Parts: sequence; structure tokens; C-alpha cells
Amino acid sequence: MSSPDPRNGRGRGVISRRGLIGSAGVGVAAAGAGVLAGRMSSPAGAGTVSPTVPFRGQHQAGIVTPAQDRLHFATFDVQTTSRAELIELLKTWTVMAERMTAGHEATPDGAIGGEQYAPPTDTGEALDLHASKLTLTIGFGPSLFTRADGTDRFGLAARKPAALVDLPKFTGDALEPARCGGDIAVQACADDPQVAVHAIRNLARAGFGVVSVRWSQLGFGRTSSTSTSQVTPRNLLGFKDGTRNIKAEDRDLVDKFVWVDRGDDQGWMAGGSYLVTRRIRMLIEPWDRTTLHEQERVIGRTKGTGAPMGGREEFDELDLQSAGPSGPLVEADAHVRLASAEELGGIQIMRRGYNFTDGSDGFGHLDAGLFFIAYCRDPITQFVPMQNNLARNDALNEYIKHVGSGVFAVPPGVDAQSYWGSTLFD
Amino acid sequence: MSSPDPRNGRGRGVISRRGLIGSAGVGVAAAGAGVLAGRMSSPAGAGTVSPTVPFRGQHQAGIVTPAQDRLHFATFDVQTTSRAELIELLKTWTVMAERMTAGHEATPDGAIGGEQYAPPTDTGEALDLHASKLTLTIGFGPSLFTRADGTDRFGLAARKPAALVDLPKFTGDALEPARCGGDIAVQACADDPQVAVHAIRNLARAGFGVVSVRWSQLGFGRTSSTSTSQVTPRNLLGFKDGTRNIKAEDRDLVDKFVWVDRGDDQGWMAGGSYLVTRRIRMLIEPWDRTTLHEQERVIGRTKGTGAPMGGREEFDELDLQSAGPSGPLVEADAHVRLASAEELGGIQIMRRGYNFTDGSDGFGHLDAGLFFIAYCRDPITQFVPMQNNLARNDALNEYIKHVGSGVFAVPPGVDAQSYWGSTLFD
Repeated sequence: MSSPDPRNGRGRGVISRRGLIGSAGVGVAAAGAGVLAGRMSSPAGAGTVSPTVPFRGQHQAGIVTPAQDRLHFATFDVQTTSRAELIELLKTWTVMAERMTAGHEATPDGAIGGEQYAPPTDTGEALDLHASKLTLTIGFGPSLFTRADGTDRFGLAARKPAALVDLPKFTGDALEPARCGGDIAVQACADDPQVAVHAIRNLARAGFGVVSVRWSQLGFGRTSSTSTSQVTPRNLLGFKDGTRNIKAEDRDLVDKFVWVDRGDDQGWMAGGSYLVTRRIRMLIEPWDRTTLHEQERVIGRTKGTGAPMGGREEFDELDLQSAGPSGPLVEADAHVRLASAEELGGIQIMRRGYNFTDGSDGFGHLDAGLFFIAYCRDPITQFVPMQNNLARNDALNEYIKHVGSGVFAVPPGVDAQSYWGSTLFD
Repeated sequence: MSSPDPRNGRGRGVISRRGLIGSAGVGVAAAGAGVLAGRMSSPAGAGTVSPTVPFRGQHQAGIVTPAQDRLHFATFDVQTTSRAELIELLKTWTVMAERMTAGHEATPDGAIGGEQYAPPTDTGEALDLHASKLTLTIGFGPSLFTRADGTDRFGLAARKPAALVDLPKFTGDALEPARCGGDIAVQACADDPQVAVHAIRNLARAGFGVVSVRWSQLGFGRTSSTSTSQVTPRNLLGFKDGTRNIKAEDRDLVDKFVWVDRGDDQGWMAGGSYLVTRRIRMLIEPWDRTTLHEQERVIGRTKGTGAPMGGREEFDELDLQSAGPSGPLVEADAHVRLASAEELGGIQIMRRGYNFTDGSDGFGHLDAGLFFIAYCRDPITQFVPMQNNLARNDALNEYIKHVGSGVFAVPPGVDAQSYWGSTLFD
């Protein structure tokens, strides 16, 4: 890197993330791209335009967007009691989020171009990285509206959707409070994990004194496809996961099961959705000592192709009626049966989960599993009955444990003038 | 996937990982590649040969191999008291490791091609994934040779290298026992995290009853380059890290500072190395509230280009002599000065660290930092004096905390007939 960036008064010869990819300073960016291309750690070559997902629109990105490879999910407790401060932060976050999803720094020249005797306003670890399809999606937990004692914290109680209530206790729940809830959730998805981590960290940084991180979760591999353009990935049970997931291309299903309609409940949620998370610890050691026959019986699909029992290919129809060699072809307690629309009066959800491995559990096992994320139009009529059915009857329960949980109202997308949550606050 | 795999008697139409990439069954593999190519979750297109790193050789892979993007590192406690059982496991692991690094399943047709009424011998989550440059590197901790009370556990005490002793307590150490030590360490590096996780998990699975996982660590982004072909990545302080690292192409430096020579100590370690790990928690919130000037003063480099103080470009010479505006150009307690060969009597190490973010710390902060990995010819004369100098004097200590630690003797590479650790046991 031999020529100094003219926008940097300190003559350090730096091409910032903004300089490289931003729409401002195109001449500099073009010159910089040639210089930097060989130095990027991402696989894109010289002149490649980084893939970006538009931030603004009717709906928030990161819901029906084709699921990116990596996740950093965080929830925040709101510390301030000032509604104005909270709104101010949401406005700041909106600007930062739009910038970062476009491949820019969180703030203009934030990492190195600012005042030398002030803290940088971008933490810098994504300076050389592409946008990597980053999406940032915000949701509001029940506790943002009212405390457990009923306190109306920010004058929002009257606008709390009926669908936004803490999930009931399900059979077998082993929830750890430190992995549950949160006033605000932000989901960062990107194809580069450092880009997702950078985004969450910079939002947390900007929120200092107003919000604090309650819990966060990294996911290293997606476990669902949300688009017909994607292959079905495998979860840590070794099975393809999400074969029957709603795909973005199924517009009718998306409208029916994902987006909140204007007449559903609170008007401010129109175009929004509800996000449910469950940190599902997989007891992979017992699972790994189970026979292939039992594993396939429990799931209701073959492990190789992912075909349903009796089928030959992954997307063959799920046959819940036929008899098999010993009882129903797909057994009564098989996971696919219990989670199927056929068994649940037609309900479906859009899943967007990720595999995780967080060290060991202190007992000689890996702490691994599935960080379940689902979007639905109404958690009470979609997720809750599905999870009740699974929690009570699923043969898989012997091998999994739900240790974290959260439900969040995801407001609609932001238009050119608005900010995250503006339909709620304005 | 329309045609059944003829090697699969159950007619499931599955192309296994082995079938796709393996050297056996080339006809099937070729046919399968065309079918599967559009379904791979990795970016490789049809007909692309997955990049693999050779497993066997004079040295173990994963040391001077260009650092891959993702890490899963685990240590194990040996539970058996039988030397024969331990050797048997190491032989089994060697076969599995060689297979997995070549992009095969851990065992032939292990996930779905075996006996239906037996547990699968591969856990399956990497079935559709490429080798992704996977390397697996093994090391033996001091506790494998002798217990703290001096017990010779496996008749290895006389072969314990003088260089393999627990690290001394350094100033400021805040080590958590559950993140320290281990009888055996395995480093899995790959460009796909699911491939690295799969590898560690399958080794752990095969070791059931003989070893158990002590701790494990995921790293999402590399923080060092080990080859001149790589760009210098950024750590979570936002700075380029490892600019002055030894590169594989510096053959003289590698021989001098990385590989154990025949005359050094125990003959069985010739061609091996020593691995030092430190889990370094970064106190990123205080760091993020520090001025750019202070950050750069602490590190001794500019944040943008990574140029040393007074320099213009990253690889400009580190000037430890000149005066700056207020005292030395590179201050007395700057990180780069204290870690420099110039200040340490010429010693160097080869670094191979990774960024991590493991949820939150329970106090509103992300638990994030650097999982430091270094390889050296002798930890006592290389790592220990360097870390002593840093632990006592480094201005960076205000922003970091060492919470995990380990040192392991890394045996030489395995030739065609031998297994991991054969020079130690045979």
C-alpha cells in the first residue's frame, strides 16, 4: 500500500473499509481496490464487488434472506429508564447497521480516520473484510414492554402485541436464566464470522450505558435453507435439517406463516414477524453410540439422502399413513411426524438455525448443539403447539436438552426515513 | 440424486464423502461428483478438486501450513491406565486423521454404509463437505508422562523432554484450571468450521472410554499468517497481528526456532516442535473506550496499515532506537518492542492464533479474545522469556487477561508405516 489516502490527514496510506467499498469517494475506492485486492483475506479477487443484502425495505433482512453461513446472535438488557435515550440508540443503531451491511465501517472513517485523542468509533477488526452478505435483524422482547411486575417501562405497555408473551414452560425444559430472554435481540448473519462478530460488538459498543449484552451465541454452520437456491445442510446429529422448511420463494406460505398482517394485532407490527430462539444442547455422545437404525427411526428420515422413511430422495413426499415393517413407516414418535404440518393442523414456521460448539461441558463432552431460530407470524398459534407436541412426544428428546429460550417481536423493515422500531415508538 | 450408489446395499442412492472424493471407486466418485456438485455447501463448483494438505511427512501438518481460517482445538485427559490401549487409540486416530484430512469419512462408509444395527462410525455432519484444507496436529502434555506426584503413568517418564514442563506462573495470570492443560492436545484447522468440529468430535468419539475431552476452543478467524502468501489478518483489538511472525518460507528461521533438532533433547522429538496455547481474554470494552493514540502507543504500530511507529507501511522496519515526540518512537512498554527479537536476545516463535467470541461474560460484556497458539523449538528458552517480558512490562496488560494455558510436545510427522507418537512409544 504505497499511496496515502487523501481523506486521511495523518498520511498513513490507509484505504479504509469505507474507502474501499463505499459509494462516496469512488475514485479513491477504485484506486484502492486494485491495491487491496491481493490483500483481502476473503476469497474475492480483484475488482469483485462484495455481495451485499439491502438493509431497508418492506421487511427486515435476515428473515427470508437465503441463510448465510455464520451467525452471531446477541440479546441486550436495556439499562436506561429514558425512552428518549432508547429511541436515540435505535436511531444510531439503524445508521450503523445500514452502513455495516453495505460493507462500510460502523461510522464514517470510524476506526482510524477520526480524532487521534478520541476512542475510535469503529473497532477495526473488519477493516479489510467484505460485507459478506451481512444482515442485521432486530427484535423486542416482552420485557421491553412491561416488567414481570407489570411496570410500563417506556410507555409501550399498551402497544405490546398479544402474541408477544414469554413462552410457556415445555415438558423437559432445562433453561438456564443466563441464556434466556433479553429486552432487545439482534441477529447478525454473514458469510464471514468476523463480520458478524464485528457488527454485534460495534452495536454493543455504541450502546454502552444504555444497553448491556445479556447473552450472545455464535453459530458456525447453518442448519436450514430458507431459499430453494440452497442445499439442505446437516446438523450435528449428522442429518440434513430443514428439508421441509418454508422457502422464501413460497410467497404464499411466507405471507401466511411469517409476516404479520395489518389486521393481526398491533398495527405497528404489520410487515414484521416473531423470532423464537431455543438453544438446544445435543447430547451428542449418547447419540453417537446409537445405532443407525435407531437414529433414522427417531428422525423419521434416512441419514444419507435425507429421504423420508420409505422414500428414495430428500424431497420425496413424507408418507405418514403407510405401514412399515413394524408399525407405521414413520413412527408415532418420529421427529418429522411430530413437527409436520400434517400433524399440527397445517401450521408451519420458517427456521433459520445454526450449529454451535462452545467448548466442553466439564464432564468430558463437547457442549454442542443447535441454536434454533424460527420466524413466525404468531408464536402462540405456531411455535407453541409445535413445541408442545415435540416436548411431550418426540423420540429425539432422549438426545437433546433445551437450555436457552427467547421470543421477540420483530418490527417491519425500515423505509428511507425511518429507524429500527419507528412504527412502535413514533 | 437419482441413481443408487452401488456400494450401498440399502439402495438409498447415497454418494458418501468417501464416494465423492476418495481414491477408491473412482468411477462412482466421478459420477457422483457431477450429481453432487450443485448441492455442495462449499463454494467449489462442479469438478473442483477439494484442497487437501498431505497428512504424512517429515513434520506434522498444521504447524508451518498456511494458517487456515477456522480452528477447533481440544485437549483430552487419558482415562485408561493401559499403555497398550493408549497406543491402540493413537493408531486408530492416525488412520482416522489421515482419512479426514483427505476429505474422507473418519472410517470407510462410516456414517451410513455400515451395519444398520450398529452405531455409525462417522457422525455424518461433514458428509457433503470438502476436505477444506483440514490439518490435524497432535501434542502430548507433561501430565501424560508423569503425574504431579511423579507417577510414571505409561512408562514414559524417562522419555519426557526437559523442555516439556508446565509453564511457570506469569505475572497477572488468571488461569482457570478447566481451561488449562490436558494429557493430549489435538489442533484441527480447516477453512470450513464444520469440518474442523467434525474431526475433533470423531476423534473424541473413537476415544470413548480411553480419553475424555478436557476442554475445547473454537476460533473463528486466524490472527497470524504463517506464509508469505497470506495477508496479515486483524485481531479483536482491530490491529493487524503477526506482521513479524516467522513465515514458512523463512526456512532458516523455521529450522532455528520451530523444529526440534536431533541433538536438542530426546531423540524421539527430532522433527517435532512444542505447542504453547494461551487463552487470552481481551477486555474489549475498556479497549474500545481508549483513544486511538493510546491504542497505537500500546501496540507500537498504527492501526490502519499496521506500520510500526514512524513507518509508513506494514512491513517497514521496526525502529526501536529513534526518539519520538515524547520519548522513544516505540515506547518502552509497547507490545511490539517487548515481543521483538531485538529485545529478547534474538528469540522468535511461530504464532498461529485465532480470534474467539464465546458468548458473554455474565457482566454485560462479550467473552472475546485471542486463542494464542505458538510453535517453538524450546518453550523454556523461547516462549517463557518472551512471556515473562510481556507479563511484567506490556502496556497491553491493562486490556487482556490470560485465562487458559497449555504446553505440549508435538512429535514429528508420521511416515507411511508409523502412527501419531510412534517415535515416543516404539
